[in-house]
Amino acid sequence: MVSAGGSERFARIALSFLAEPGDLALGRLVEACGPTAAFAAICDGRPPPAAALGGIPGLDRGIERWAARLSRVPTDSRLAAWARAGIRVVCPGDAEWPDRLGSLGIAAPVLLWVHGCADLRVACQDSVSVVGARAATGYGSHVSTELAAALAERGWTLVSGGAYGVDSCVHRAAVAAGGRTVAVLASGLGYGYPRGNRDLFTVIARDGALISEWPPDQAPSRPGFLIRNRLIAALSAGTVVVEAAMRSGALSTARHARDLCRPLMAVPGPVTSNQSEGCHEIIRQWDAILVTGVADVIEAISPVGDGLAAPHRDCTEPRDGLDAESAAVLEAFPGRGSRGPAQLAVEAGVSLDTAMRCLGLLAAAGFIERSASGWRLRKMP
Amino acid sequence: MVSAGGSERFARIALSFLAEPGDLALGRLVEACGPTAAFAAICDGRPPPAAALGGIPGLDRGIERWAARLSRVPTDSRLAAWARAGIRVVCPGDAEWPDRLGSLGIAAPVLLWVHGCADLRVACQDSVSVVGARAATGYGSHVSTELAAALAERGWTLVSGGAYGVDSCVHRAAVAAGGRTVAVLASGLGYGYPRGNRDLFTVIARDGALISEWPPDQAPSRPGFLIRNRLIAALSAGTVVVEAAMRSGALSTARHARDLCRPLMAVPGPVTSNQSEGCHEIIRQWDAILVTGVADVIEAISPVGDGLAAPHRDCTEPRDGLDAESAAVLEAFPGRGSRGPAQLAVEAGVSLDTAMRCLGLLAAAGFIERSASGWRLRKMP
Repeated sequence: MVSAGGSERFARIALSFLAEPGDLALGRLVEACGPTAAFAAICDGRPPPAAALGGIPGLDRGIERWAARLSRVPTDSRLAAWARAGIRVVCPGDAEWPDRLGSLGIAAPVLLWVHGCADLRVACQDSVSVVGARAATGYGSHVSTELAAALAERGWTLVSGGAYGVDSCVHRAAVAAGGRTVAVLASGLGYGYPRGNRDLFTVIARDGALISEWPPDQAPSRPGFLIRNRLIAALSAGTVVVEAAMRSGALSTARHARDLCRPLMAVPGPVTSNQSEGCHEIIRQWDAILVTGVADVIEAISPVGDGLAAPHRDCTEPRDGLDAESAAVLEAFPGRGSRGPAQLAVEAGVSLDTAMRCLGLLAAAGFIERSASGWRLRKMP
Repeated sequence: MVSAGGSERFARIALSFLAEPGDLALGRLVEACGPTAAFAAICDGRPPPAAALGGIPGLDRGIERWAARLSRVPTDSRLAAWARAGIRVVCPGDAEWPDRLGSLGIAAPVLLWVHGCADLRVACQDSVSVVGARAATGYGSHVSTELAAALAERGWTLVSGGAYGVDSCVHRAAVAAGGRTVAVLASGLGYGYPRGNRDLFTVIARDGALISEWPPDQAPSRPGFLIRNRLIAALSAGTVVVEAAMRSGALSTARHARDLCRPLMAVPGPVTSNQSEGCHEIIRQWDAILVTGVADVIEAISPVGDGLAAPHRDCTEPRDGLDAESAAVLEAFPGRGSRGPAQLAVEAGVSLDTAMRCLGLLAAAGFIERSASGWRLRKMP
């Protein structure tokens, strides 16, 4: 299934306006009966019979709570406005949906709002999260910048939270190194929190992606940051904490990485610095891997035997495996520069709908990627 | 056996002038036939029959090498001069011999030259080695000073190597905190290397001890430092590395601590500092325990269940367990101040030899300790 059907997609969009991200009662309901029936049940104000049999904890109160928000479900014109602003919806089952999110189970997002040229699935395939203190010291800023630049130069996508401090250093260093970076925001993409990073977000979107579980105009909430952190951990092959005080939010990301059994790494620092206390704590208490530079990180996240090898970016499939329509769309690409879907559809001799489906498949297979002005062939390493 | 017999003691002194410390062929020979027969064999220029049967590797060449140095065996007058300078000989079997050295097996020293007021066995009972770079950074100096002071305040003896940098900070901090410290030198005690630390050595000897395996007037050699490091590790309950570059001698001490299955700890530092590279390496590769302060160190070296308790300094035995002569000598002590052995012998009504034997026993049992002017009662915590 390349993309969810119209009604399921609309149900997911609606659900994303009704429940908070990470709401486990909704996660169980969707798991039990699918998003369409879940949304219908909320509209009816009572659980579907099948799900009620399962005995989902908190479901009755959940449906009451979600139904009270039904007026928030956006109109088609609001959705169209966001689409025009470059914000797309990516749902489970879509070609762009990152495989790794499956590990979140019922805590997985019902959808993601995405802005930016990168194909999210491809970008996250070889990705590392690097997170840390907003109140980064000069040391933390230096280390996160150096580490992110070195990882980006080696083809790794840098995932972080778009915050001030370490996160900003990570995103900026990846961009400056000509690499790709994904910012997972705790606000809606249109809101763009923190506002002081909006210029950075624009730059990130050029070759990378901004993503959020919250509706585009949503302001951030305090618990939202912790909920968001599970996505940072789940999207990437491993998580590195650069600087973190003992109560830093970065430790919540670390905890998710640990709970997901992803390699969890921490950069040590002076024992005289509060901002390194959290790193030392997780090395001692959680067996986080002590890393001092890019080689350590790559060793920790590479499959056993890969050693210090570059990430296996060879995620393209042979063209022979493509269906006739996708092959025709791929042939329609120019060697250099970008094309819009309509133009590609005409040149390939397929309908716009077919072209859109094929583009998703081709991006997921690593042949093409989004650009600021449409789609382009991916450079093969 | 309180002290080795005269001929065995002289044999050990002689052997310490013939073989390099840590010479395993000599260690095996002494293990096989005892120091007196070993020395006799060297004087004869051939292995004793029993030992030859054991097939000790390198024994024939060893005996040749050691016999060539027989002229180095000191005269009684040289030995007496060292004794007048406050340098005493402590042999295996003596009451002051530190129990932990037994873990070195055939690599144990044939004797130790000791200078200073502390009873070596008692001092090492609750001791921690803190070692590190000679080229310590400001960070390393600060951390080692703070850590050593905090350990000394809690009653732990600080063992280190008497070198510049981290070692000096450790010794100085222990002295300044009113605690006890033991410096294990790689030169003879009369030579006192590094010479720039001679004033420090004088201060250390007041309440602590300087020890060496090398004859008092021996200059240090490069391999001697590495050989010495096994003693630092073996004397203490655990070893902490504060700063160490990748080829630092402190890592040789760390390796000995690991090989002796003693808790091995390391203080992390900035990944941008060469002087912390060795610490990070042993945390990652050798599972050294990452420690950030005194609480971590005490937790690591305390027996399971002791948690953060102060070291169990209650190493005194009830007076009831003493033999009549030792009890009489103990009774002869004044409540405050020191007494010499002759005075104590007179007051206890025993011979000087008996008094010396009893003093060794009483010190080993924790009742008394050496002072600058003789012996005094130990303060009970």
